[in-house]
Amino acid sequence: MPYVNIRITKDGATSEQKATLIKGVTDLLVETLGKNPATTVVTIDEVETENWGIGGVPVSELRKQAKKK
Amino acid sequence: MPYVNIRITKDGATSEQKATLIKGVTDLLVETLGKNPATTVVTIDEVETENWGIGGVPVSELRKQAKKK
Amino acid sequence: MPYVNIRITKDGATSEQKATLIKGVTDLLVETLGKNPATTVVTIDEVETENWGIGGVPVSELRKQAKKK
Amino acid sequence: MPYVNIRITKDGATSEQKATLIKGVTDLLVETLGKNPATTVVTIDEVETENWGIGGVPVSELRKQAKKK
Amino acid sequence: MPYVNIRITKDGATSEQKATLIKGVTDLLVETLGKNPATTVVTIDEVETENWGIGGVPVSELRKQAKKK
Amino acid sequence: MPYVNIRITKDGATSEQKATLIKGVTDLLVETLGKNPATTVVTIDEVETENWGIGGVPVSELRKQAKKK
Repeated sequence: MPYVNIRITKDGATSEQKATLIKGVTDLLVETLGKNPATTVVTIDEVETENWGIGGVPVSELRKQAKKK
Repeated sequence: MPYVNIRITKDGATSEQKATLIKGVTDLLVETLGKNPATTVVTIDEVETENWGIGGVPVSELRKQAKKK
Repeated sequence: MPYVNIRITKDGATSEQKATLIKGVTDLLVETLGKNPATTVVTIDEVETENWGIGGVPVSELRKQAKKK
Repeated sequence: MPYVNIRITKDGATSEQKATLIKGVTDLLVETLGKNPATTVVTIDEVETENWGIGGVPVSELRKQAKKK
Repeated sequence: MPYVNIRITKDGATSEQKATLIKGVTDLLVETLGKNPATTVVTIDEVETENWGIGGVPVSELRKQAKKK
Repeated sequence: MPYVNIRITKDGATSEQKATLIKGVTDLLVETLGKNPATTVVTIDEVETENWGIGGVPVSELRKQAKKK
């Protein structure tokens, strides 16, 4: 019955990569806790880099600064 | 004061259907728990089918397989 | 396949009231969007009143002020 | 290590305003709780007005009604 | 930079099992998307069985019914 | 109308500190985006350190290791 929400920056993750995440997390819950995969739900949220901050700075800004160096 | 988050796959829910969900959940909280509707917030997240997995498989993939049968 | 998260202040909601919320939200999604109840998940989070703020003030504080009046 | 999720209606918040929110929330957590900014994450979700309800009515609808008055 | 939230019913998951989930999800994100583990955050919410519903019925109730059979 | 969820490890934040967070985030949204404080909701989740992982390791474990050094 678990519900898992994965939040990543929107950076062009492919359908295959997202399917790998969904499969991997579901398998992990089955193997570790014996959960029923049939009712295990995984959702992935892809968040724009200007809407994601770390260290008080948007990721969009961190990347601009990294490029300048 | 309740806050409700409804997550569904992005499947063309209409504005009317979403208004019905918002009204229905708010009424339910008022009737069941006596909550104040004025501060009851409902948000709806529509998630792409390739970002939603169940049973370890993305919904987008499950639908392709269902069509083949 | 929907996932619904209901957040309310921790105020002694009974098991019966919570069962009513779970049933009501699930029925609403089935009736409004034709969702499959078997994979509809509803979770309820009960949040301490000092951890819930509205208008910039914790609910625990708002209630103390209301009592004084 | 805190994680903060800010949800607002999609109303044209600028990159600068969102950067201000990210900076402000991070500073607040550092000053109030002594948290490490390097591992403080802030995400902002901008939700369509027809997907956000208050008082049982979508914000998109509330605004239409307000305009008529 | 990913943030992952795992929600399970409160059923006595051990510290070791939870550490396995945290390690497994982090490794999966590093391997699949090349994410930096140092800023990958995983949180686990353990939800009371009477606060978790599936098919319109609380898990606490489903288990009572299963025992009677 | 904003909704903000702050997640921190359970580490003895006081009622005063939590009130400061609620006030600070609400003020920030009012000042930055002109939001109405009356419908701004802030919730704080305090998560057990063994349920919070960073770098693939639970915070409870990271602290044990730090003490040994």
